[in-house]
Amino acid sequence: MRCEVVAVGTELLLGQIVDTNSAWIGEQLALAGIDCLFQTKVGDNFGRIEATLRQALERSDAVIVCGGLGPTQDDITRDVIAEVMGAELVRDDELEDRIRSMFGSRGRFMPENNLRQADVPVGARVMDQMPGTAPGLICPVTIAGEEKVVFAVPGVPWEMQEMVAGTVVPELRRRMGETAVIRSRVIRTWGHSESGIAEMLHDRIVELDELGNPTLAFLASGADGLKVRITAKAATEAEAEKILAAEVDLLAPILGGFVFSIRDWSMEQEVLDLLTSQGRTLATAESVTGGLIAKRLTDIPGGSSAFRGSVVSYASEVKFDVLGVPEGPVISEETAIAMAEGACRVLGASCAISTTGVAGPEEQEGQPVGTVWIGLCIDGEAEAHRVHLPGDRSRIREFTCISALHLLRSRLLAGG
Amino acid sequence: MRCEVVAVGTELLLGQIVDTNSAWIGEQLALAGIDCLFQTKVGDNFGRIEATLRQALERSDAVIVCGGLGPTQDDITRDVIAEVMGAELVRDDELEDRIRSMFGSRGRFMPENNLRQADVPVGARVMDQMPGTAPGLICPVTIAGEEKVVFAVPGVPWEMQEMVAGTVVPELRRRMGETAVIRSRVIRTWGHSESGIAEMLHDRIVELDELGNPTLAFLASGADGLKVRITAKAATEAEAEKILAAEVDLLAPILGGFVFSIRDWSMEQEVLDLLTSQGRTLATAESVTGGLIAKRLTDIPGGSSAFRGSVVSYASEVKFDVLGVPEGPVISEETAIAMAEGACRVLGASCAISTTGVAGPEEQEGQPVGTVWIGLCIDGEAEAHRVHLPGDRSRIREFTCISALHLLRSRLLAGG
Repeated sequence: MRCEVVAVGTELLLGQIVDTNSAWIGEQLALAGIDCLFQTKVGDNFGRIEATLRQALERSDAVIVCGGLGPTQDDITRDVIAEVMGAELVRDDELEDRIRSMFGSRGRFMPENNLRQADVPVGARVMDQMPGTAPGLICPVTIAGEEKVVFAVPGVPWEMQEMVAGTVVPELRRRMGETAVIRSRVIRTWGHSESGIAEMLHDRIVELDELGNPTLAFLASGADGLKVRITAKAATEAEAEKILAAEVDLLAPILGGFVFSIRDWSMEQEVLDLLTSQGRTLATAESVTGGLIAKRLTDIPGGSSAFRGSVVSYASEVKFDVLGVPEGPVISEETAIAMAEGACRVLGASCAISTTGVAGPEEQEGQPVGTVWIGLCIDGEAEAHRVHLPGDRSRIREFTCISALHLLRSRLLAGG
Repeated sequence: MRCEVVAVGTELLLGQIVDTNSAWIGEQLALAGIDCLFQTKVGDNFGRIEATLRQALERSDAVIVCGGLGPTQDDITRDVIAEVMGAELVRDDELEDRIRSMFGSRGRFMPENNLRQADVPVGARVMDQMPGTAPGLICPVTIAGEEKVVFAVPGVPWEMQEMVAGTVVPELRRRMGETAVIRSRVIRTWGHSESGIAEMLHDRIVELDELGNPTLAFLASGADGLKVRITAKAATEAEAEKILAAEVDLLAPILGGFVFSIRDWSMEQEVLDLLTSQGRTLATAESVTGGLIAKRLTDIPGGSSAFRGSVVSYASEVKFDVLGVPEGPVISEETAIAMAEGACRVLGASCAISTTGVAGPEEQEGQPVGTVWIGLCIDGEAEAHRVHLPGDRSRIREFTCISALHLLRSRLLAGG
């Protein structure tokens, strides 16, 4: 089964919006075992959308057209599809009522042109999911005697995602004659390279290559770590989940301390969860990360129960005066330790992590860019570790953040 | 002049990487007055890259192929281009030396397959810019008697950008016979809607529609504000810059206090620059933003001269104990004011901003999600303002951040 993606919108070509939809759809298709060999962006132009759609239908079995389903005169995707189907657009009364009532329930005036969204090519079906006012359409097309299909979905990401997951992918798999269920789980790791992780899993990879199910994929994700994705195929969801659980139970012990989540959670989420389960509280003292760790921890709703707060001690005097760091060079083991101890004391937390280092672009205190000390204090016991991180300012700060949280997590698990 | 973009890489189709390169290139082409009608993503497959490239050359004058120039066996862009040119690939001695010396200077071992990157189709030229080990190529092709051109650039964004800006766009404009220069400037605004800004500029927009040069475009950029881009065309760079400067001088006073940068700087950069010029220092006390403002300020290299640091007082006790906030409801005017005063005192700064509010998903102290108090203290004078922000947790935090910095900037300018 081959399925192409066509993203419609002049704003995509002009670079005013980055087309993230095609990448998301490509991932869903790959997970479902459907080949996606081409993805095309085209502007709001009838002739060019039509030519792109016809070509895609010639070389693939199905096409997902994303965007151009809105109410304005620019939105011509449904007109082009009707042309390619050789069908008329007819107003769908049920859709018209639904659109009118959506505006009514929000107490908003409905401009008449919104009803264009109720026009459906004869022979097309409306998708069940309709989170916005633009309906998704399933449009059968016969090309050179072959039955093919165009799925039209809106460009609004969350509307598109609901329709692709709820209708498009299941429908494509049904057409493939595929009744099996495909499910994935992700193990997240930190602290080892992709080749290193692959080497650790070498024996199992060889076995799985023969078995064919489940399959493994590695996704290097920068400061989010390296993800190991396990994908299983089975007759039922329950069976697929059972295969995944067994594989996680097998792989996680092999990867040991490099694993930080077996449920695809971020490092911040795992650390906050662990702190809560151990009844501990966390503070941070940040220099080189400048508030990034606190920001990440507070991205998570409800984190306030375990996270006390932070002292961002960017200026050296703040380290000395607020955190009680002894005066001297600040990119040092002593400073990292004193910062972590100071954070526990000042912010009233049982654990703290601290960061002090050189994010660049210039060296500092004679230390090269990328030199970072990470401090740690748990129940009054403090330690510090030096790391050398590659990359630019932003990357050094991001890597410092996850490295510090990883270190804390390892220590909490060892002591817990 | 029509130019298409072809992004090569199976990882793009699988959604492992979002193709941001095409959007960036599309924007550059639009700014240079070059039409880009199609952008295609294709995997690392010889036949499909070739078919895509040939089709693009048939319907456009030029094609930018992005990616597939690396050293591995997957990287076949240069082989496909040689095939389409009907030319052989020949090892370029100068390039070989350059690649060898790049590895040598970094003290790294060079695997032999890196030298594949020194292979150039006969008739192609190497671009002057070469920030990595993959050279950019300018490849003339004759299609049905017409002279066309393929530009091959690496998929690494900063390498690609240097080559597109330095070689591809100037070369395309030369081929258009365009000797005029196009330059842009951006005025960044905060605090007013796109339609509101357009209304303020209405009279000038009408005038410019008649004049035709310069042109204005509005770009809504979320928590980076609304950008007004002025684009001018002139015989020389100096003339274009003169037109732009005159237009900025005309528009900025009309937009008044909504303008925060006339040089396309971020709000953080402008605030740090203003603080430095006024000889002031800044501290933050952050609850709802949880370190985000400090993180933003320290994203800017060298910000440490004006930025002292932050107390992230996520837990209420940190507000009371560290910042000296009187005990009571924390989402309040009194708390925002006491936090800002506390930040000045504790962190030794002449100015401070503070944030306390509800980012959701749940309401707090009976206040709805989106309720935020922003506090401000300059030379001991404190005040606070309540705002109601729409959107989800992330958006509320981002908008709080820029709103607080905007308020500080306005007060510093009024008092300065």
